[in-house]
Amino acid sequence: MPKTGTTVTTGPIWGSTKRYEPVPGHPGIRFPVRRVNLSNGEHFDLYDTSGVYTDETAVIDVDAGLAKTRDAWPRPEPIDGAATQLVWARAGIVTPEMAYIAAREGLAPELVRDEVARGRAVIPANHRHPESEPMIIGKAFAVKINANIGNSAVTSSVAEEVEKMVWAARWGADTLMDLSTGKDIHLTREWILRNAPMPVGTVPIYQALEKVKGDPTLLTWEIYRDTVIEQCEQGVDYMTVHAGVLLRYVPLTAKRVTGIVSRGGSIMAAWCLAHHEESFLYTHFVELCEILRRYDVTFSLGDGLRPGSIADANDEAQFAELRTLGELTKIAKSYGVQVMIEGPGHVPMHKIVENVALEEELCEEAPFYTLGPLATDIAPAYDHITSAIGAAMIAQAGTAMLCYVTPKEHLGLPNRDDVKVGVITYKIAAHAADLAKAHPRAQERDDALSRARFDFRWNDQFALSLDPDTARSFHDETLPAEPAKTAHFCSMCGPKFCSMRISADVRAYALENGLTTPEAIEAGMSAKSAQFVALGSSVYLPVRPL
Amino acid sequence: MPKTGTTVTTGPIWGSTKRYEPVPGHPGIRFPVRRVNLSNGEHFDLYDTSGVYTDETAVIDVDAGLAKTRDAWPRPEPIDGAATQLVWARAGIVTPEMAYIAAREGLAPELVRDEVARGRAVIPANHRHPESEPMIIGKAFAVKINANIGNSAVTSSVAEEVEKMVWAARWGADTLMDLSTGKDIHLTREWILRNAPMPVGTVPIYQALEKVKGDPTLLTWEIYRDTVIEQCEQGVDYMTVHAGVLLRYVPLTAKRVTGIVSRGGSIMAAWCLAHHEESFLYTHFVELCEILRRYDVTFSLGDGLRPGSIADANDEAQFAELRTLGELTKIAKSYGVQVMIEGPGHVPMHKIVENVALEEELCEEAPFYTLGPLATDIAPAYDHITSAIGAAMIAQAGTAMLCYVTPKEHLGLPNRDDVKVGVITYKIAAHAADLAKAHPRAQERDDALSRARFDFRWNDQFALSLDPDTARSFHDETLPAEPAKTAHFCSMCGPKFCSMRISADVRAYALENGLTTPEAIEAGMSAKSAQFVALGSSVYLPVRPL
Repeated sequence: MPKTGTTVTTGPIWGSTKRYEPVPGHPGIRFPVRRVNLSNGEHFDLYDTSGVYTDETAVIDVDAGLAKTRDAWPRPEPIDGAATQLVWARAGIVTPEMAYIAAREGLAPELVRDEVARGRAVIPANHRHPESEPMIIGKAFAVKINANIGNSAVTSSVAEEVEKMVWAARWGADTLMDLSTGKDIHLTREWILRNAPMPVGTVPIYQALEKVKGDPTLLTWEIYRDTVIEQCEQGVDYMTVHAGVLLRYVPLTAKRVTGIVSRGGSIMAAWCLAHHEESFLYTHFVELCEILRRYDVTFSLGDGLRPGSIADANDEAQFAELRTLGELTKIAKSYGVQVMIEGPGHVPMHKIVENVALEEELCEEAPFYTLGPLATDIAPAYDHITSAIGAAMIAQAGTAMLCYVTPKEHLGLPNRDDVKVGVITYKIAAHAADLAKAHPRAQERDDALSRARFDFRWNDQFALSLDPDTARSFHDETLPAEPAKTAHFCSMCGPKFCSMRISADVRAYALENGLTTPEAIEAGMSAKSAQFVALGSSVYLPVRPL
Repeated sequence: MPKTGTTVTTGPIWGSTKRYEPVPGHPGIRFPVRRVNLSNGEHFDLYDTSGVYTDETAVIDVDAGLAKTRDAWPRPEPIDGAATQLVWARAGIVTPEMAYIAAREGLAPELVRDEVARGRAVIPANHRHPESEPMIIGKAFAVKINANIGNSAVTSSVAEEVEKMVWAARWGADTLMDLSTGKDIHLTREWILRNAPMPVGTVPIYQALEKVKGDPTLLTWEIYRDTVIEQCEQGVDYMTVHAGVLLRYVPLTAKRVTGIVSRGGSIMAAWCLAHHEESFLYTHFVELCEILRRYDVTFSLGDGLRPGSIADANDEAQFAELRTLGELTKIAKSYGVQVMIEGPGHVPMHKIVENVALEEELCEEAPFYTLGPLATDIAPAYDHITSAIGAAMIAQAGTAMLCYVTPKEHLGLPNRDDVKVGVITYKIAAHAADLAKAHPRAQERDDALSRARFDFRWNDQFALSLDPDTARSFHDETLPAEPAKTAHFCSMCGPKFCSMRISADVRAYALENGLTTPEAIEAGMSAKSAQFVALGSSVYLPVRPL
């Protein structure tokens, strides 16, 4: 590809070093770890999505692209025409990708294989994207997050998008979607794919629309099919296909407050109405399956009729499409193609769980991949927060991957800073859900950080946090001096009085004097309180007659 | 009080004008409304907490303070020694404050009176704070939010705190707590009270501690009592009292990950251990009741043993204290004093509902007032977000007021910008809960904003949002031109293609051609799709034999 001269952000995350650990049973295959080095001599290893960009020993050349590591891994033979993780898992084969994921998540390889075989998890890993580090999307595993980037007709350059991708990986994006709609779509995607350590997804209809000058009515199956093949060849790992937007569902949106807000959904609705024909994505779905399974590209069945407002949540149009996605899920799996299902959107808190329950029932528990949802419509510029509330709750209910929302949602395209805020916010939602689901090891990080906080190991607290740079800078705003990094107080109370310090004193006093049980402390109490205790735990203060 | 020369932020919120509406049955009493003027000629009235500061006709003089409006309102006679909203409500009296609140919330005065009489709602309104605009805290009403401000030994000036108060009111803070711990505590509080349109709360033990040079062991009941009286006289509307931290509960915290993180709780724990006596807040609780009821100051019974980490959530120490708060609630109510209960803290999502259920059971549904809770410990610098997730969920479960958390939590004291981010974030959590609870009128705002969004009435969308200034500036980053404020596209898709525009076209086409039902559209379908439809809604694509 042409020289970009692009430079991206490199170097380790503050307080951490990059390490590679062996994948058991697969000599020569290693997975990445972010090791946080603590001031008390201990260390804490974190799941690492950042790629070689955080390896200070690595030589980064965006023009050359990343090493095509997976090309050297043994690949099982195709089964019945399909060379996918799904068919291999069904055949009882633990692929190198599955072993890698098991080691990375700290779980058993057999669990990974079984969840993939059952269609409850997917491993988006196009054979043509050997640069990617295998990861898994499924409710039995850590909740994942996706970052959307992409230029449009009015903004952004290719180099900017590559840096956004690296930046998103650095802060924790598990997958990336390139939603470019402007010119240079193919070239932008090429640079992203060759440098992306994570799986990359697209919405092929966007590029197909560019090929017909943006007029949806001029789209044809042939143009779309050729675009899909072009992207499969390039290495796209999963594709959003809005094959559930059927002609007869379109009128169900006519009386909505916000109609159809999905780009792909509105394109297909316009095509269906103009031609008075059923969607070519639906009528040619089997041919799509036959294309995707050759590369092991994963379907992300799009929710083209998702609600775009609280008023439209969980309505007839949304759930009619979901039923069709359930039918298509069975077809795709019967062709050996991996499938996940996209979800809303805008949903009030009390209507969130129904979305997960219905998706699992209709789609045989295929991984659910939701955009938020936003829990209210009234906070443009803060929709990373309105959606983090919905995202945490829907992930607790079983959603496997959360598509981030940035502060620019509804207002503009995210810049580099917005991408970071969106990623960190969604790491919070995903981790909160992992805690609520009691995911193995999830709470270890909270406990390690809280111990550092209670011990006033400020730098350890920063290093263990999702964003050490910002935590450090906030602390420095009020207590800039380096000694303050070890001071046994903070700016909230100041040096004279500190609740944490008193609490530490209380603990020490109690332990030293053996006052670690109510009995012990009561035994040592003075007459007055002894008298009180003699009355038992009930209140001896008189309740005033009303 | 001495001249401050302080100036604060004034003027209407962008797109809105200040109005005052009459309180039915109370000539001369009016309540404030923020009227959003829409470009389509309609208008939308919002609950308004901002005080006269957003009234462009008002003359603001911080040194003179706000008008003592409530002094002119008729006040019922004391009953049985108590002059509180609680005893009047029990006597069947609808006070001017209750009528004001009913009009402000759009609910029946009798509902307000009944909820207060039952102790399920409180109206913090010290007779000595006549500048305040009455508001109510209870699960039957809109969820409220509290903003904490206050200087410390190491930061901030008095003038800064007054501006923070006005700024918090502007963006939606329903109540304010002055948590100052440094010098000039009395003076800072005086300036805040005389200029605060909302109820103001404090934690008297902080000032008492200053009087003994920060050594908790030197505290006495007399010093504390005199501090409480001083603050009652000044006009504080509600006070956090950590009377549930009993001597025998202290050892229960010895083995916690983060011990005691509440300042008040750690002060009292230190005192109890040092003196080997029961907390004077507990042993003198009846005297406290007799003081507070003279002014109608509301108890906010503090959770001094709240968990400071995910590991300590819902533990024995926390719930032991809650049981004692339940006993104290009954005593306070028997003395005619209004009571609310403070809650955690740090709680994982799956342990949130238990907190509300237990509080309602033990405290006779006294209003619950929670700090977040934070749903994870791992994101310092983003704890407004980690806690907004927990706050929205706990409010959905029945919490009446949410104490905000700013991005500086755990790291430093919030500046003016942090205060705004904290307030807006908590308005999101509170509104999301109002939607989930189907609070009357809550969804009207979402619908109005979403209609504006779908109609490309950009300025209306901004004006109806929680933060019009930031929404506007984000939009202008990518499409600065004024025409773009009415353009039928945005920077996400650009002018050539826009999903919202296509969706609008689809809707228009469907309506014009009467294609508003599946039947109608099917009737008009071409042969091919007719043939498809003849097969019914089931898929005609072959499922491949496995």
